Amino acid sequence: MTKRIALIHGPNLNLLGQRDADTYGSSSLAELEHAVQAHAKQLDVVIRTFQSNVEGELINALHEAQEDCLGVIFNPGGYSHTSVALRDAVDAIAIPVVEVHLSNIHAREDFRKRSLTAEAAKACISGMGVQGYLAALNAFIRPL
Amino acid sequence: MTKRIALIHGPNLNLLGQRDADTYGSSSLAELEHAVQAHAKQLDVVIRTFQSNVEGELINALHEAQEDCLGVIFNPGGYSHTSVALRDAVDAIAIPVVEVHLSNIHAREDFRKRSLTAEAAKACISGMGVQGYLAALNAFIRPL
Amino acid sequence: MTKRIALIHGPNLNLLGQRDADTYGSSSLAELEHAVQAHAKQLDVVIRTFQSNVEGELINALHEAQEDCLGVIFNPGGYSHTSVALRDAVDAIAIPVVEVHLSNIHAREDFRKRSLTAEAAKACISGMGVQGYLAALNAFIRPL
Amino acid sequence: MTKRIALIHGPNLNLLGQRDADTYGSSSLAELEHAVQAHAKQLDVVIRTFQSNVEGELINALHEAQEDCLGVIFNPGGYSHTSVALRDAVDAIAIPVVEVHLSNIHAREDFRKRSLTAEAAKACISGMGVQGYLAALNAFIRPL
Amino acid sequence: MTKRIALIHGPNLNLLGQRDADTYGSSSLAELEHAVQAHAKQLDVVIRTFQSNVEGELINALHEAQEDCLGVIFNPGGYSHTSVALRDAVDAIAIPVVEVHLSNIHAREDFRKRSLTAEAAKACISGMGVQGYLAALNAFIRPL
Amino acid sequence: MTKRIALIHGPNLNLLGQRDADTYGSSSLAELEHAVQAHAKQLDVVIRTFQSNVEGELINALHEAQEDCLGVIFNPGGYSHTSVALRDAVDAIAIPVVEVHLSNIHAREDFRKRSLTAEAAKACISGMGVQGYLAALNAFIRPL
Amino acid sequence: MTKRIALIHGPNLNLLGQRDADTYGSSSLAELEHAVQAHAKQLDVVIRTFQSNVEGELINALHEAQEDCLGVIFNPGGYSHTSVALRDAVDAIAIPVVEVHLSNIHAREDFRKRSLTAEAAKACISGMGVQGYLAALNAFIRPL
Amino acid sequence: MTKRIALIHGPNLNLLGQRDADTYGSSSLAELEHAVQAHAKQLDVVIRTFQSNVEGELINALHEAQEDCLGVIFNPGGYSHTSVALRDAVDAIAIPVVEVHLSNIHAREDFRKRSLTAEAAKACISGMGVQGYLAALNAFIRPL
Amino acid sequence: MTKRIALIHGPNLNLLGQRDADTYGSSSLAELEHAVQAHAKQLDVVIRTFQSNVEGELINALHEAQEDCLGVIFNPGGYSHTSVALRDAVDAIAIPVVEVHLSNIHAREDFRKRSLTAEAAKACISGMGVQGYLAALNAFIRPL
Amino acid sequence: MTKRIALIHGPNLNLLGQRDADTYGSSSLAELEHAVQAHAKQLDVVIRTFQSNVEGELINALHEAQEDCLGVIFNPGGYSHTSVALRDAVDAIAIPVVEVHLSNIHAREDFRKRSLTAEAAKACISGMGVQGYLAALNAFIRPL
Amino acid sequence: MTKRIALIHGPNLNLLGQRDADTYGSSSLAELEHAVQAHAKQLDVVIRTFQSNVEGELINALHEAQEDCLGVIFNPGGYSHTSVALRDAVDAIAIPVVEVHLSNIHAREDFRKRSLTAEAAKACISGMGVQGYLAALNAFIRPL
Amino acid sequence: MTKRIALIHGPNLNLLGQRDADTYGSSSLAELEHAVQAHAKQLDVVIRTFQSNVEGELINALHEAQEDCLGVIFNPGGYSHTSVALRDAVDAIAIPVVEVHLSNIHAREDFRKRSLTAEAAKACISGMGVQGYLAALNAFIRPL
Repeated sequence: MTKRIALIHGPNLNLLGQRDADTYGSSSLAELEHAVQAHAKQLDVVIRTFQSNVEGELINALHEAQEDCLGVIFNPGGYSHTSVALRDAVDAIAIPVVEVHLSNIHAREDFRKRSLTAEAAKACISGMGVQGYLAALNAFIRPL
Repeated sequence: MTKRIALIHGPNLNLLGQRDADTYGSSSLAELEHAVQAHAKQLDVVIRTFQSNVEGELINALHEAQEDCLGVIFNPGGYSHTSVALRDAVDAIAIPVVEVHLSNIHAREDFRKRSLTAEAAKACISGMGVQGYLAALNAFIRPL
Repeated sequence: MTKRIALIHGPNLNLLGQRDADTYGSSSLAELEHAVQAHAKQLDVVIRTFQSNVEGELINALHEAQEDCLGVIFNPGGYSHTSVALRDAVDAIAIPVVEVHLSNIHAREDFRKRSLTAEAAKACISGMGVQGYLAALNAFIRPL
Repeated sequence: MTKRIALIHGPNLNLLGQRDADTYGSSSLAELEHAVQAHAKQLDVVIRTFQSNVEGELINALHEAQEDCLGVIFNPGGYSHTSVALRDAVDAIAIPVVEVHLSNIHAREDFRKRSLTAEAAKACISGMGVQGYLAALNAFIRPL
Repeated sequence: MTKRIALIHGPNLNLLGQRDADTYGSSSLAELEHAVQAHAKQLDVVIRTFQSNVEGELINALHEAQEDCLGVIFNPGGYSHTSVALRDAVDAIAIPVVEVHLSNIHAREDFRKRSLTAEAAKACISGMGVQGYLAALNAFIRPL
Repeated sequence: MTKRIALIHGPNLNLLGQRDADTYGSSSLAELEHAVQAHAKQLDVVIRTFQSNVEGELINALHEAQEDCLGVIFNPGGYSHTSVALRDAVDAIAIPVVEVHLSNIHAREDFRKRSLTAEAAKACISGMGVQGYLAALNAFIRPL
Repeated sequence: MTKRIALIHGPNLNLLGQRDADTYGSSSLAELEHAVQAHAKQLDVVIRTFQSNVEGELINALHEAQEDCLGVIFNPGGYSHTSVALRDAVDAIAIPVVEVHLSNIHAREDFRKRSLTAEAAKACISGMGVQGYLAALNAFIRPL
Repeated sequence: MTKRIALIHGPNLNLLGQRDADTYGSSSLAELEHAVQAHAKQLDVVIRTFQSNVEGELINALHEAQEDCLGVIFNPGGYSHTSVALRDAVDAIAIPVVEVHLSNIHAREDFRKRSLTAEAAKACISGMGVQGYLAALNAFIRPL
Repeated sequence: MTKRIALIHGPNLNLLGQRDADTYGSSSLAELEHAVQAHAKQLDVVIRTFQSNVEGELINALHEAQEDCLGVIFNPGGYSHTSVALRDAVDAIAIPVVEVHLSNIHAREDFRKRSLTAEAAKACISGMGVQGYLAALNAFIRPL
Repeated sequence: MTKRIALIHGPNLNLLGQRDADTYGSSSLAELEHAVQAHAKQLDVVIRTFQSNVEGELINALHEAQEDCLGVIFNPGGYSHTSVALRDAVDAIAIPVVEVHLSNIHAREDFRKRSLTAEAAKACISGMGVQGYLAALNAFIRPL
Repeated sequence: MTKRIALIHGPNLNLLGQRDADTYGSSSLAELEHAVQAHAKQLDVVIRTFQSNVEGELINALHEAQEDCLGVIFNPGGYSHTSVALRDAVDAIAIPVVEVHLSNIHAREDFRKRSLTAEAAKACISGMGVQGYLAALNAFIRPL
Repeated sequence: MTKRIALIHGPNLNLLGQRDADTYGSSSLAELEHAVQAHAKQLDVVIRTFQSNVEGELINALHEAQEDCLGVIFNPGGYSHTSVALRDAVDAIAIPVVEVHLSNIHAREDFRKRSLTAEAAKACISGMGVQGYLAALNAFIRPL
């Protein structure tokens, strides 16, 4: 049976590579997804990707992921720090979510230090760039 | 030339496996270190481990690590949330530090949500159990 | 002339019955709407329902409701606690809004204790499950 | 067997109808109680009423209610926002309490937005005037 | 070459003129846009307008504006005070944004005094009604 | 009859052009005033200017302005964030005040984000440099 | 017709003269009341006094005062700082209340600096000892 | 001469043994008092007990205790955390008060962590159940 | 020997009678001073008055008052809530200061509820209009 | 079998008797330990004592105590208020800890009012001097 | 060329020696200045002194100092804790400022613990009395 | 008799010169100590130095210093901002402590603005680099 993982990107991640490379790195979103896909192939996992700037569409994507995925790798971007509704979605679904941030959220502005969504997630990785996504993927395949 | 990484464990981690297994897992510290060593061997890296319950000895260990290590994998335990002195040590040394927590600090008491040490670290991984350490190790070997 | 009431459901309420039954009860959203429709029929009122996970679509629904409805029964879900924009929408429209929560928001996490949307609503009912919706409906038909 | 519900009114509610009619409506406490009694009769329920301005007498009344009542409809007035002792009483008794406020506490001064007593109650209704009491009564008779 | 400025309106601004005229004035959104267009014509500038109640669509509009506009005149409405994601979008794009509020946000509720989006904007004008938009337009044409 | 507007500059603005040009621009106060005077001439308005580092003299200047001016363009500098007395003066006088800041106060230190004086002003413009003063002037001549 | 003023003393004032004379002075409550009565006689006013340590009895006394008094001189003691219910009583009654504290509440512990009851009172006098009561009495007889 | 100690119980303690046995233990108030009396007999001390749910009656009881008692063993229950008036009573009387809580107030909700009454007491014991009362009794008989 | 009292008025009090009569009354400063002078004459006291909008001139006036006055009647206006320097002046001088506010500062905006200057004063009277000044005068003549 | 209790003293307690006798009493640490040993002998209990100024050594001592002790009597001194690591140690060990403070921590500076370590302890006694230690000892021998 | 240092004293320092000698010492301002002048002579430095109670005059003095001085020794008194305008002046001028306080501001009321002006100064010395001024002087002459 | 002063360095100061030279200067700890020793020689004082990264060893060093030293020059590094235990040690010993920071703690992150240890010290010097130590030394030799 196919093992499937959803990879969900939040707001402004479509601009990756164009925006503040010191903070977010110089890879584009396509390059990032390519790296995750390559790693997934080795682990015999299928990745389904989704990006939206709309909070509610991210909630929809989380809801849908639980239909046929083992878990979600989720970068909620700026919604991490403000969205009770996304937090509730992470909490509501029956599969684990690993939250990933490209930059180290602890080392930035105070309003980025608390992640509401991470409070309902299984784990949170921040500051490891693209490596963070690969680590999250490993976490679903090997026992935590 | 030998690639060396320091693995530094903070307070109460000597009790691992005996203490609140729901939160911290059932592996002992020796088992955790064994898993990291095994993974390091594959990556051709040498791990030097240290555990102390004394804040200042952890500062000493960080200082010493910069003599001959590429980086530090650091679980500061409860000192994460209270120690400006440890944060300054993480900041002062010339090598990168990846902070790891076995449990998801975002999902626990409010006083655990802010990590002062992570503010000076390169990256922070929390909630991935032993896998978090392996991910941190990967991060030093492959480009971030 | 037909008396019409809008029944607007916010984020994650589409998962009702699948999600944390201790908190939200075991009825599905369809069952909840069925109960409201049945009660409305007795009161000779027509109910128009809408659910969305998208904050802005909920704002649109509130705007549209004022065209032909007497009032709105509104469960803003997690947006209650964070959305100034939804609060402004509740405030902006010319018809009264009664806010309903299935669970008792006062008895949950601190961040759920303040409802921004309720600050602009006519009334707020929380913790009465499906009964809360029926009570809200009564409130529009009989003088407050 | 007689179904009995206690209706307990907190401080200043004896002045109802004389005091700030914009906020609290123009009915007197007697008129409010009359409306509740009338509705109770239809539901075959007996209502026992009590009003006091003394916090401790309200605690006593809650304690006594559990002897022979199914539940309590409680308007703690200004004590809602300040009384840990009343909250403990609501929590201590073996029967459910539904808290009712005539005005919408979310739409008033900041110090009225948090209700300590509602944190221990089953449900909370605010802003529905006399209708709030009837809704609370329904909640005890029909399954929540 | 055509000089183009994006004029982006946030939540509830579609109700302009219908909603709280004391605070927001009595012009409709069409009238406001007409005034801006008339002024732009004099300055030989083309205005492209967009309104949405959906936070993510506003993010999309900001992203798109940088393709062919000199700058953005942006009224984020209620999202100003809560949206890190919109703030990040303002920050991420390569063209300057001038934030405009019809009412004086400093003179209203406390939660309106801080604007997260203005923190990433070039400038902020509040309380000048339609004039604020014209001033913002001037700012793009004449050197700041 | 002569239309007169007072232009009042607060503390440290006498150093304009010598002080932190990245934040405040490189024009001197004389150059700034010259630009405002030129624009005023076009609008057939007389500008009366005043600068002081003394809080109470600024209060005096506001009091005097109401004798013969239509309004005040006021940059309260650092007093914006701390002075209840200046706020009261803005509130007490019978003519409207438009507050102007050269830099964007929302984008600086936290203690600059709240302006007490702006709470009593008609409007507030920040981050537009000298243009902000011209915009304020327009606001008095054309209907707000 | 008799002019009547109620003089209501809150908790611990029965111990006056026995308790911390540096803060509260050395007069007993009887001596204090005697001084007020003497002054009242000169002003042709009748004083009705009441003391209770019970918050609710103080509420009752305020309610009763409005039946036949011109106003109330009220020292709410420690309840000043904590009682929303007493504040509501001061607000609810149709006659003015002047709050008096023997000691200067601004010069004591932080929790005594805010008086909730004074927020609903006409005026507040603190730190003038027995003189404060006489001043309050004057305030009812001569126009404020 | 008889040595007398007052034992004063605050709100809801009359329900002891019926209420949340995990937190408060399974003894009734009578059983608790019996244990204290037995211990007092051994120490040749007379205990006078009082329980009330009314804050002001507890103040009265503290006032009366100083007439003929050596000290007070006081469990202020929920009033500990909210009552400045009770704190003032503890402070006002001439005999020492030892505050006792059955449960460990530091290990419960945040609003129970601060005890206003303990700030004026001699000592505070919490979390020792009935033993806490015996310890308090010892403290009065043997030199502190 | 002449008994002298200084009467010092802070910022904006020169506008008295012209400014917000609902809050501050309709008397001018001259009328207020006239009333105080008349009362002083009866008490055989000389009043020396001073008004300034400049914080430092008020400090000077307090310093000078101690040369030949018995005490100061001081209305610090808006400086009450922000000035540590004025507070220090009140504290530094060897004669008592009674603070007076025309309006009830407890009943206004939150930032007016704390008076720093009153923390160093002997007493504080607020909300009694001109009567407050007469009461303050009495306080210096008759023993406090 | 020997019943053993660990008695662990935190920072600065080695100075007991030399330091601020008003707050901490005049007994030396040796005298305090002697009193506890004497009481322990009567109860047929062996006491093992330890003092350190080093936070981590206190953690070590807690860990070791669980090897052969029934419980710990612990005075964490200043670390009570700041140490998450010590709190975790108290929580991690399998035996109960009773926290003791010589002085009443509720009656001192605000930063001493919260004890992090007491949040994980069984009970907390403060303000009873040496008696507090004896009471803690009783608590281990007789059922809590 | 003459080396010149400005010595600027803020509010209430003119009262030095007359005011609270325990906190500020018993020297007068003249004596303090004499000590500084004597030390300056040894270092071949000219001191220019200025004292004002007026915040704006202190700003003026800072502005003027940069014309011909190497640096400023500045005791801003109570303005340290409240003045953004003075902080901006310290920041705006091109010469370094060393802030001096006679008393230890960390050991006094909470509102004195933060110095806004010190945030823009080079260094801050507090609690060393007159010695603090001499140390500041040394700091300008010998390399920091 | 020999005059002796202890010079105690806290965490991370062993790295001096290697760490962030912009903030801490480029001298090593040995060079700093050499400068202090040279100055001490001139003043005929003996300096005993100690450095540790361990909080408790710093407490020990403070305790020992009082045996034979006149005072302590103490740089508590990061522990300044978090350690109640160190603060208690500074307070407990019988000799004065002058706190020194190389950088200006007021000009750095918010969490460095409050020094708990300075609250118990005699004086605090920050931002003067090595000069700060010399100034502290002077303070012990010449009268403060």
